[in-house]
Amino acid sequence: EHPFTLIVGPCQIESRAHAREMAAAISEICTASGTGWIYKSSFDKANRTSLRAQRGIGMKEGLDILAGIREEFGCPVLTDVHGPEQCAPAAEAVDVLQIPAFLCRQTDLLLAAGETGRAINVKKGQFLAPWDMANVAAKIASTGNERVMLCERGTSFGYNTLVNDMRGLPIMAATGYPVVFDATHSVQQPGGLGGASGGQREFVAPLARAAVAIGVAAVFIETHEDPDRAPSDGPTMLPVSQLGSLLRQLKALDTLVKTDAG
Amino acid sequence: EHPFTLIVGPCQIESRAHAREMAAAISEICTASGTGWIYKSSFDKANRTSLRAQRGIGMKEGLDILAGIREEFGCPVLTDVHGPEQCAPAAEAVDVLQIPAFLCRQTDLLLAAGETGRAINVKKGQFLAPWDMANVAAKIASTGNERVMLCERGTSFGYNTLVNDMRGLPIMAATGYPVVFDATHSVQQPGGLGGASGGQREFVAPLARAAVAIGVAAVFIETHEDPDRAPSDGPTMLPVSQLGSLLRQLKALDTLVKTDAG
Amino acid sequence: EHPFTLIVGPCQIESRAHAREMAAAISEICTASGTGWIYKSSFDKANRTSLRAQRGIGMKEGLDILAGIREEFGCPVLTDVHGPEQCAPAAEAVDVLQIPAFLCRQTDLLLAAGETGRAINVKKGQFLAPWDMANVAAKIASTGNERVMLCERGTSFGYNTLVNDMRGLPIMAATGYPVVFDATHSVQQPGGLGGASGGQREFVAPLARAAVAIGVAAVFIETHEDPDRAPSDGPTMLPVSQLGSLLRQLKALDTLVKTDAG
Amino acid sequence: EHPFTLIVGPCQIESRAHAREMAAAISEICTASGTGWIYKSSFDKANRTSLRAQRGIGMKEGLDILAGIREEFGCPVLTDVHGPEQCAPAAEAVDVLQIPAFLCRQTDLLLAAGETGRAINVKKGQFLAPWDMANVAAKIASTGNERVMLCERGTSFGYNTLVNDMRGLPIMAATGYPVVFDATHSVQQPGGLGGASGGQREFVAPLARAAVAIGVAAVFIETHEDPDRAPSDGPTMLPVSQLGSLLRQLKALDTLVKTDAG
Repeated sequence: EHPFTLIVGPCQIESRAHAREMAAAISEICTASGTGWIYKSSFDKANRTSLRAQRGIGMKEGLDILAGIREEFGCPVLTDVHGPEQCAPAAEAVDVLQIPAFLCRQTDLLLAAGETGRAINVKKGQFLAPWDMANVAAKIASTGNERVMLCERGTSFGYNTLVNDMRGLPIMAATGYPVVFDATHSVQQPGGLGGASGGQREFVAPLARAAVAIGVAAVFIETHEDPDRAPSDGPTMLPVSQLGSLLRQLKALDTLVKTDAG
Repeated sequence: EHPFTLIVGPCQIESRAHAREMAAAISEICTASGTGWIYKSSFDKANRTSLRAQRGIGMKEGLDILAGIREEFGCPVLTDVHGPEQCAPAAEAVDVLQIPAFLCRQTDLLLAAGETGRAINVKKGQFLAPWDMANVAAKIASTGNERVMLCERGTSFGYNTLVNDMRGLPIMAATGYPVVFDATHSVQQPGGLGGASGGQREFVAPLARAAVAIGVAAVFIETHEDPDRAPSDGPTMLPVSQLGSLLRQLKALDTLVKTDAG
Repeated sequence: EHPFTLIVGPCQIESRAHAREMAAAISEICTASGTGWIYKSSFDKANRTSLRAQRGIGMKEGLDILAGIREEFGCPVLTDVHGPEQCAPAAEAVDVLQIPAFLCRQTDLLLAAGETGRAINVKKGQFLAPWDMANVAAKIASTGNERVMLCERGTSFGYNTLVNDMRGLPIMAATGYPVVFDATHSVQQPGGLGGASGGQREFVAPLARAAVAIGVAAVFIETHEDPDRAPSDGPTMLPVSQLGSLLRQLKALDTLVKTDAG
Repeated sequence: EHPFTLIVGPCQIESRAHAREMAAAISEICTASGTGWIYKSSFDKANRTSLRAQRGIGMKEGLDILAGIREEFGCPVLTDVHGPEQCAPAAEAVDVLQIPAFLCRQTDLLLAAGETGRAINVKKGQFLAPWDMANVAAKIASTGNERVMLCERGTSFGYNTLVNDMRGLPIMAATGYPVVFDATHSVQQPGGLGGASGGQREFVAPLARAAVAIGVAAVFIETHEDPDRAPSDGPTMLPVSQLGSLLRQLKALDTLVKTDAG
């Protein structure tokens, strides 16, 4: 079993300068702990709680910035797509296409993503059982593209609340596809602030530790130099100043669990 | 308060002949009980559980068939849309655009639907609290289109199960928008058959009675002459042979509750 | 099918004078609408959220007051029991023993209650599926006592929230035992006020209408002349001043549904 | 922070000979890994799904066997109590009284347990939020007994299913009381076999690893030499042959997390 990869970055692409600053900080932190990483950022927030929330920088400029990050830092980059027509252009700029949780059953989007040949990280819908992700993966695999990752980011639990059923990690792993744990959106409180989603940043670290102790292929953590001022997902993002110490702890757990399992 | 309207039809448009047969049967039943009705059918099933499931007749032919139903039977028609680009063409053929539950937070789709000026029936996402639908409605209303209907179709309750929180009906009604109760998809067991969704047709009638006794503007019931052979949603559709007696009962309840409330 | 019975009274026995006043008011209201009723009140609140909450008047005095109500008003009376040793004494004073939801799996309590030969109203645990109540009823029936009623009062739905799955009513009715809908505790928000349970009194009426439209043998409603000053369950009790109009509406629905079903 | 303690034993006391054999096997395994342990076993299963299920050996004989285990193996012993009258006699024989999850709100039981002065392990009810356990602990602490442990064993999640919300561990720890993770009952499927509870033994190890990686004071694991033939909880108990390797892994994780946190 390989060490986990970190999927990491600020929720939104705020500007070219901001993206580069974040990538530089992350690169340093990941290099220090010997962690492979994929830079994640979104060019569009297509399903915000409220219409008044900030949407993002747009696809064209966003993809150009991500391509620049890839070139400058030599890291793979990931972004999310929201319609079939976005898949081909996004695939030219990024290494991994991500399917948002609400859209994980949209057949045309899954097929268009699969057809690019890029790796696909599919978030498990908040309304889906972990075993139902086998059907989702099969839609993508039908294009001949088997580079699928299945991502846990919480399941609906009453109103405005998500819960991580940690059994879902081994259940999804039984498909044979690598499993990702999204520690950021798992602590989201959807719609919990009325016109915006709330979050519980204090649980990012314990939940990430729990997932790594079970065994995952990747951990997904959004980070920002000042989350409380970020244009989206502030309540759930980890301050970049805390990323290094969390990463050291996760690496130690990962090594222990994967050595022992071997 | 007005009597409830029935939104009714087979899940999928199977063929022009089938659509007309269903509309004729429904027309007779609704006329007999003096119920206003809107014909519902889908040209595409865009988020089936499994890739192998039947998708539908396609947008162009489907819209043409619906326009024909409208002309022949003099009834409004409704269909669901799955991307912003479908809204304008669909709006030329139908009176009501429907937003699927999984897509009820997709801002671009809500705006494109709103901009057509057509009435919009938005299904509450299985992952949303009823009060969160105020934000969904506000996205549509931002286009100047206030012809919004909010539709209850169940909320995630553990795995492969939905529950109707009947409190959601008055909570959504407090927005001022008319509330629809979808008795068909509320009895769905998502993914419950492994490669397909299961359903509990036997609960369509009691749940519809409960919703009407609380008070709703419309009831949504999918029907088919032979549900067990239908290409989709068979386990949840009501045999058309049972529609008349259910409708009589719902009408009597509706009259009683709305008279009494007045 | 018989018309529904109303199980009704203040949550706690506050004093002999208060119990008589409530019974007198209820008697008048029920007589006016021709509704059969059972007087309900508790001598002990054995599982309050917080230790500081008021417990009740005690078993001896409470049972004596209930026996007095029965004699004076000629109505059956109901109270809840919390341990096997309370069953026999309670059965001397009351017609119906009630098993609290948290205790619905405690074998010794169910057997002791059954052995009294009295009718038993068992609340479905918030943690139980409706079909699991068949095993609960079987424990009581093993004593030779088949006078069992199964009562819906909400199921856990995330934290501090209950939901009524209205499918549970016909599911429990399939056991052959009469089904009760508890409209008061269904709108409880357990622990929702920190040191006490909250509640949503505004949903008592719509949920009761929904249950009656599905069809139940009894409706359970706690009432008080001034709920906001009651020592327990204030947020969920119905002001007695509103009982009459709700009862008229429920009676009309009940008649309609049961006539039609026949 | 101290290393975790293991609460361990067969679900039921089957016989004196069986209890001694299990304790001997456990003692050897725990000594090998330097783990402190508390022997757990029940003298009565007071809330079985079905009446036909086996109840247990009875209080008098059961307590005598547990006292014998304590003397012979020099370990503390734990058992569960189901009514206030059992607390004092049980406290003479055992070191820790356990409050079952269904009974965690029964004030009289909590007070009687607290008054013994023994340590109390309270299971969090499947119907309670983790923050609600502060009120439960306060009931016990009102007796002057602060030796309280709060135990996670799953929360209701739809029907016949529990989920561990791992955030509950730090939330309960914030009360200041030590937190226990019950890996056995967390994988229970209540009522999932119709007349009995099912279980998913395969998730005991991953969930225990997750909890230890978050950080707990104790882990609770029921074990048996042949779980599939055990009179209760067979589907969730760990074969004693697998206990040693799991314990080694948990110890390594615990050391890592607690060293790092320090």
